[in-house]
Amino acid sequence: MPILNKDMTLCISLAARPSNNGTLFHNHLYDQLGLNWIYKAFAPTDLAQAISGVRGLGIRGTAVSMPYKEAVIPLVDHLAPSAAAIESVNTIVNDNGVLTAHNTDYTAVVELLRTHEVSPALRTVVRGSGGMAKAVVAALRDSGFGDVVVVARNESAGRKLAEAYGFEWAQETVDGAELLINVTPIGMAGGQDADRMLFTPEQVAAAQMVFDVVAMPAETPLIRTARDAGKPVVTGADVATLQAVEQFVLYTGLTPTPEQVHAARDFMLVQTQHS
Amino acid sequence: MPILNKDMTLCISLAARPSNNGTLFHNHLYDQLGLNWIYKAFAPTDLAQAISGVRGLGIRGTAVSMPYKEAVIPLVDHLAPSAAAIESVNTIVNDNGVLTAHNTDYTAVVELLRTHEVSPALRTVVRGSGGMAKAVVAALRDSGFGDVVVVARNESAGRKLAEAYGFEWAQETVDGAELLINVTPIGMAGGQDADRMLFTPEQVAAAQMVFDVVAMPAETPLIRTARDAGKPVVTGADVATLQAVEQFVLYTGLTPTPEQVHAARDFMLVQTQHS
Repeated sequence: MPILNKDMTLCISLAARPSNNGTLFHNHLYDQLGLNWIYKAFAPTDLAQAISGVRGLGIRGTAVSMPYKEAVIPLVDHLAPSAAAIESVNTIVNDNGVLTAHNTDYTAVVELLRTHEVSPALRTVVRGSGGMAKAVVAALRDSGFGDVVVVARNESAGRKLAEAYGFEWAQETVDGAELLINVTPIGMAGGQDADRMLFTPEQVAAAQMVFDVVAMPAETPLIRTARDAGKPVVTGADVATLQAVEQFVLYTGLTPTPEQVHAARDFMLVQTQHS
Repeated sequence: MPILNKDMTLCISLAARPSNNGTLFHNHLYDQLGLNWIYKAFAPTDLAQAISGVRGLGIRGTAVSMPYKEAVIPLVDHLAPSAAAIESVNTIVNDNGVLTAHNTDYTAVVELLRTHEVSPALRTVVRGSGGMAKAVVAALRDSGFGDVVVVARNESAGRKLAEAYGFEWAQETVDGAELLINVTPIGMAGGQDADRMLFTPEQVAAAQMVFDVVAMPAETPLIRTARDAGKPVVTGADVATLQAVEQFVLYTGLTPTPEQVHAARDFMLVQTQHS
């Protein structure tokens, strides 16, 4: 770490219950790239005042997490296409007092579909209708996917999400799916559903690819089942890392190497396990 | 340094042209005391927005420097007696969104007069009428000094300052002074007046004590002359250090030992010379 000094550029995050991930990941990258930058998470007491502070203190950028992703929209100056696509913000960049909102969850999903060369012709099932579902469904539409079914027990939320992007809703899972995407918290560590998955082993075996947005752990029951069946996978850790890298690029204008990203991610995981 | 993490308590400073001193000094003390705190200077683009940010981000405290010491008054909730005494703020403490403004320059001068057992009966001359002059003159009054002359070439500013605290103004230096106080920048490193002093060696020889608020260097021509004449001195470095310690105490509730303060000050001085 460089000695803390007055000239450091500050980036922050705003969340009601911040994790330590962003602080560990970004500071480690700053260190590796020799940047005189610093990153720290905040749990704001007032969102509008916090955004005023971003402007008034000249904070370079802020990540935005639950429950502020929509509430922050009227507080910024511009929405980048990524944030406009899903009316949800997870990143704000401050260019000399002009705040532009982005959504790097959306751009990360678009990018992962592209780099994994996922055919937009695949019959796709998305399970879930929460915040991350919107980023995934919008990314599917904007990547040219046409045959997408949103499966959600909550008919109102599921139907609204599906129809907003020109897709179908279904209450129960549908057959013949080639791309399986989980956007629910099922499989997340610590929850009562940590050992569950919403697709059957038969559905996984019949699919061409599996995508899970649960990042902790990366190896959810769904991902493990898919790997065992020899299917290509995209994990929630892939999404979380790539969206954080895209934030880093937006803030600094610099693109870290894959090795630097891996080192920062490993540092983050080790430190998180120790805490 | 601890690894930067989400739970660090942040303190900041606000100045148009920040020095690195506060950042170095406070972070070194945090480190010595094992506090999970962090300190960084800012040059705000907008004072009101910056203060909103202090509230909204839950920043524990901020130092306030030129040119914000008066402008910040309407933005806080309470003035502590130290700030009210001189209508000038150099420290704001945030207690769960309630901002209380203090002036630790004032309290540091009061404390130095007390610990040096300076008799309030001394005939005192204060040279200068700038921002620091008010802290010194108010501290003299509130420490019971009755025979104080403010000597300033600027009659308007000098008269206003002197009369505000019940003292006399004079254009030129007066005789018979027992306590000599310089509150001008004369003797400051880097200026064209770095080698000058506003009191004559004869006046120093006739005095009982000399006090200079110039902190860089601590050993101004005035202080050196006083030391050579065997006079007790208070230096600007004494004021700067004590006021910073008092900020530290206000923010953290903890009082560092003299050894910890010396170590932080030495660290600050070494780092500043290297930069």
